[in-house]
Amino acid sequence: MQATVAHSCSAAALTQRRAAAPKQLSQAAAKPSARRQAVRVRAEGEGAPATGIETKGPNMTALKEIQEIMSILPHRYPFLLVDRVLEWEYGKYAVGYKCVTINDNFFPGHFPQRAIMPGVLQVEAMAQLGGIIMIDPANAAQQTNFFFGGVDNLRWRKPVVPGDVLMMRCDVTKFNKRFGICKMSAKAYVGEDLVCEAELTLVMQPEK
Amino acid sequence: MQATVAHSCSAAALTQRRAAAPKQLSQAAAKPSARRQAVRVRAEGEGAPATGIETKGPNMTALKEIQEIMSILPHRYPFLLVDRVLEWEYGKYAVGYKCVTINDNFFPGHFPQRAIMPGVLQVEAMAQLGGIIMIDPANAAQQTNFFFGGVDNLRWRKPVVPGDVLMMRCDVTKFNKRFGICKMSAKAYVGEDLVCEAELTLVMQPEK
Amino acid sequence: MQATVAHSCSAAALTQRRAAAPKQLSQAAAKPSARRQAVRVRAEGEGAPATGIETKGPNMTALKEIQEIMSILPHRYPFLLVDRVLEWEYGKYAVGYKCVTINDNFFPGHFPQRAIMPGVLQVEAMAQLGGIIMIDPANAAQQTNFFFGGVDNLRWRKPVVPGDVLMMRCDVTKFNKRFGICKMSAKAYVGEDLVCEAELTLVMQPEK
Amino acid sequence: MQATVAHSCSAAALTQRRAAAPKQLSQAAAKPSARRQAVRVRAEGEGAPATGIETKGPNMTALKEIQEIMSILPHRYPFLLVDRVLEWEYGKYAVGYKCVTINDNFFPGHFPQRAIMPGVLQVEAMAQLGGIIMIDPANAAQQTNFFFGGVDNLRWRKPVVPGDVLMMRCDVTKFNKRFGICKMSAKAYVGEDLVCEAELTLVMQPEK
Amino acid sequence: MQATVAHSCSAAALTQRRAAAPKQLSQAAAKPSARRQAVRVRAEGEGAPATGIETKGPNMTALKEIQEIMSILPHRYPFLLVDRVLEWEYGKYAVGYKCVTINDNFFPGHFPQRAIMPGVLQVEAMAQLGGIIMIDPANAAQQTNFFFGGVDNLRWRKPVVPGDVLMMRCDVTKFNKRFGICKMSAKAYVGEDLVCEAELTLVMQPEK
Amino acid sequence: MQATVAHSCSAAALTQRRAAAPKQLSQAAAKPSARRQAVRVRAEGEGAPATGIETKGPNMTALKEIQEIMSILPHRYPFLLVDRVLEWEYGKYAVGYKCVTINDNFFPGHFPQRAIMPGVLQVEAMAQLGGIIMIDPANAAQQTNFFFGGVDNLRWRKPVVPGDVLMMRCDVTKFNKRFGICKMSAKAYVGEDLVCEAELTLVMQPEK
Repeated sequence: MQATVAHSCSAAALTQRRAAAPKQLSQAAAKPSARRQAVRVRAEGEGAPATGIETKGPNMTALKEIQEIMSILPHRYPFLLVDRVLEWEYGKYAVGYKCVTINDNFFPGHFPQRAIMPGVLQVEAMAQLGGIIMIDPANAAQQTNFFFGGVDNLRWRKPVVPGDVLMMRCDVTKFNKRFGICKMSAKAYVGEDLVCEAELTLVMQPEK
Repeated sequence: MQATVAHSCSAAALTQRRAAAPKQLSQAAAKPSARRQAVRVRAEGEGAPATGIETKGPNMTALKEIQEIMSILPHRYPFLLVDRVLEWEYGKYAVGYKCVTINDNFFPGHFPQRAIMPGVLQVEAMAQLGGIIMIDPANAAQQTNFFFGGVDNLRWRKPVVPGDVLMMRCDVTKFNKRFGICKMSAKAYVGEDLVCEAELTLVMQPEK
Repeated sequence: MQATVAHSCSAAALTQRRAAAPKQLSQAAAKPSARRQAVRVRAEGEGAPATGIETKGPNMTALKEIQEIMSILPHRYPFLLVDRVLEWEYGKYAVGYKCVTINDNFFPGHFPQRAIMPGVLQVEAMAQLGGIIMIDPANAAQQTNFFFGGVDNLRWRKPVVPGDVLMMRCDVTKFNKRFGICKMSAKAYVGEDLVCEAELTLVMQPEK
Repeated sequence: MQATVAHSCSAAALTQRRAAAPKQLSQAAAKPSARRQAVRVRAEGEGAPATGIETKGPNMTALKEIQEIMSILPHRYPFLLVDRVLEWEYGKYAVGYKCVTINDNFFPGHFPQRAIMPGVLQVEAMAQLGGIIMIDPANAAQQTNFFFGGVDNLRWRKPVVPGDVLMMRCDVTKFNKRFGICKMSAKAYVGEDLVCEAELTLVMQPEK
Repeated sequence: MQATVAHSCSAAALTQRRAAAPKQLSQAAAKPSARRQAVRVRAEGEGAPATGIETKGPNMTALKEIQEIMSILPHRYPFLLVDRVLEWEYGKYAVGYKCVTINDNFFPGHFPQRAIMPGVLQVEAMAQLGGIIMIDPANAAQQTNFFFGGVDNLRWRKPVVPGDVLMMRCDVTKFNKRFGICKMSAKAYVGEDLVCEAELTLVMQPEK
Repeated sequence: MQATVAHSCSAAALTQRRAAAPKQLSQAAAKPSARRQAVRVRAEGEGAPATGIETKGPNMTALKEIQEIMSILPHRYPFLLVDRVLEWEYGKYAVGYKCVTINDNFFPGHFPQRAIMPGVLQVEAMAQLGGIIMIDPANAAQQTNFFFGGVDNLRWRKPVVPGDVLMMRCDVTKFNKRFGICKMSAKAYVGEDLVCEAELTLVMQPEK
């Protein structure tokens, strides 16, 4: 991974508010515990609106929002499994995620008594993120489709359930642009837990 | 809001890994910037697995996971809109969230050209969280249904889109247990941004 | 409400057949009780086809059928909740309805044991009807989107269930065309029963 | 059809409010035109709530509501197509209806450019109503399934579209209880328009 | 039915592989039993990949694949019920089929305890195949819609369940091109079992 | 693969009719070409019902029909991807298939312009077939769940489209009953074409 990641969001963005003033941000970075306490005090005050953990929820700054993703990938409901891209470098790597909710269409069947995200859909999500890496934004005419060619060393480590944010990273290990074949190392996390990993082979084809 | 919140997850839990070892946690808390740098170094090293932002994604520790929520609420797919409860005190308040994904069943229709979470479903999500507050876990025989009675001062502040984590807080302002009427102040956030707020009136009825 | 409602269907239309010949219509209007009795006689006759209540079912003449509604509203399945507009005057008011059926996609989840139309979807339906009021048919170039800004004094009075026809009326109370903000008084009925009422604030935005 | 229909709703019920006071009802029956005018006057008055056509919308009194229908028929979403039964006599006939809404799950596919209720689903709806006729409420142990055996002389007369109330009547013409074979004459109306008619053959089987 | 069926697949195609070399095909045709035995021997060999019945599964050569069908019929999910056309002659007849799977969207409701393909959807599938017969490929400008006009002598013979391949044949018996009315004899089979038959009347209309 | 496959259907069953008379079957087996010709003659005869390829469609005799599969697997719509099991031996192997239809719920999203079965769902289908192998029918009390542990050497060879019958075979290569870990060699075919293959690792867990 290069240091010059022009298109990426800085890691700090993960904990930023959407439109935060710089001053507030540096304060938050400097004294997290102080800030947390302030919130508590406010919550206990009379007449003050009770707030706390809920305003420190995640708000991941998007490099690519869903509309841009939908302009790149041909996948649509109920088979579009990437919600946001956080970091991206053409032909190199990407970090993105899918929010997992009980309202995902597959949970009624997997399983009625116990909601677990199907492992194969985690792989699909990683592959969709992988496909986004392979589009050259400088080549607008390049209309492409991605097909899955193969998967190696796929392992699932932990169940993924509603309420999880499936954070994924794909790193290109080989990219034969001439034949449109791309190999990637893909990993999916929930928090710091590795939940799925695999080596993916994607094939790029010109669209009809 | 009382200081003694026996059933709540501490705010710190938000940034905890699921099954993190204590030592690692304290390290992470002590030197976040150091840790981040270490990751970068590792990513740039030869042969080392490239990792970074993706392992610092959110992993919100659940006080109530989806299976417990489904044992409390009668709502089911496609109308169950709370994925996890983070804090909860009977008859007092709750903090919980819904993951918003392009795979939510309502996005194909709202709207085909632009995915925006319907505002009324944010209100429904807050009301479902509110309903969870009203169940007394010490009274197992208390089988109840919640109906929406009314809403006041409902305002939407910002659009909610796929990839957002809709973090909600409901605080009971009046709870007439005899008549089963409960008023709540409800707020929904994406990160630190307030996206929706309302005063909810829920009515509790014994199930037939 | 003005007497000169050029675009509205007369109240009598409610009981009219779709393409009825004028003569038959005037007969029906003139002697409803006579006609009803005739049917009974026929039903009791030998060899006669038994008919009765079923031909006196409702057939509400549309001012705007679903295809026109879909050309105005960007909402689509499963989030388009107005089936027909009966009366309409630009910037003033509209009367329209949604048929409620067990085949509505939300009933499997709300609730598995008891089908009740979610209250928030009644509000959404009223807001969609409200949005239709705000389109100026004389200004074809005016491509607009409607967003919900807020709701006040929302009350639900009775449950709405499959088989109900949710008849709605929205009356504009304030319409600031310059800022695209519109306030409306909205009511929903099942028969003569008021089931839901609210003050809606809609915001009109130019489409991207 | 017999005059003694103990289980039926009177024809007048069609225009009744749900919980109307007897006095109001007789007034409404006696002077419909007077009443309609009164509404107009009220609507034009200052400060008065503008009301009109919307409170004269249909509200068909149910002999069997959806919950009872679901206890009789094994059909479920998305293939339960009767919302309410208005008249019913065991082994003789029934009148019931389905509300048709753009939110019916089949409209996205039939057709994307023009919403028309599939004709075969009108037949299915009539057959489901027919099945309800064949259950003997006095024989609670009689657990039965209905299968479609055949259809003759099926004709569709007019398209059925969202916003229509598909009012159906099935009259048993032959009922061989020993072999569980039942022939019915079925008709479906929208208002006074006959939209579909057929001769149905249903077969009743004991459930496994 | 004419002997000159220029557009049809030969009956032998049913057992052909998709891109089989001619030599292999003639061998297979000549010595089916020999070939079957060879497979068994291989399966019992050491280190040999175990194969058997699974490579003799059906692979029906398409005259019209789904993409072409979707360019002819306006039907879409969840109401497109023909997967492939095997034989076809304009204005004369067609043979095609629908694969029936537990993943068909109607099975959750028909019935929860026992998956049976609704009989009316078999009729719809036959009618869709019938519609394909009526398109003149030589008249590209002929944009048409098909509506169902009527059905006679419809009989269901056996239940159709997941895993069945519903093979259908429609033969035009009368085709009044001037009025766009077409009568057809339609049959549906599972293997050699006739499961449904009917006389269909289709009406062709110019698209708006 | 052993010669003694007590629970399997013979390969010949593939071409059998469901309830064929023995005599007809042996004739068909003896003289397929003669039989085919007879059909043609009949088809060309005057007044004779035209029949042909459609009665030679596949009808795969089930060892396990969908109801039995649903009693074994916890998967449900829209994530149950095995329609029928043709051969099966506990702890050894199974042959089964899924019918692929344009009405499969995933096709609207994969892809709107071109219906291709997602590769990961082929893997899921093979894994579900694999799970069926691991149930001991002699041990009724053995309530188990299957989770996917990993996949190796996964390759997709050809696209699978609506109208295909995805015929699958799983052969157990290692079965550690004590730890509930099972490795399988899985292959999927459309006709004689290998479309997908992989080494699957399934993990069996007692149900909570």
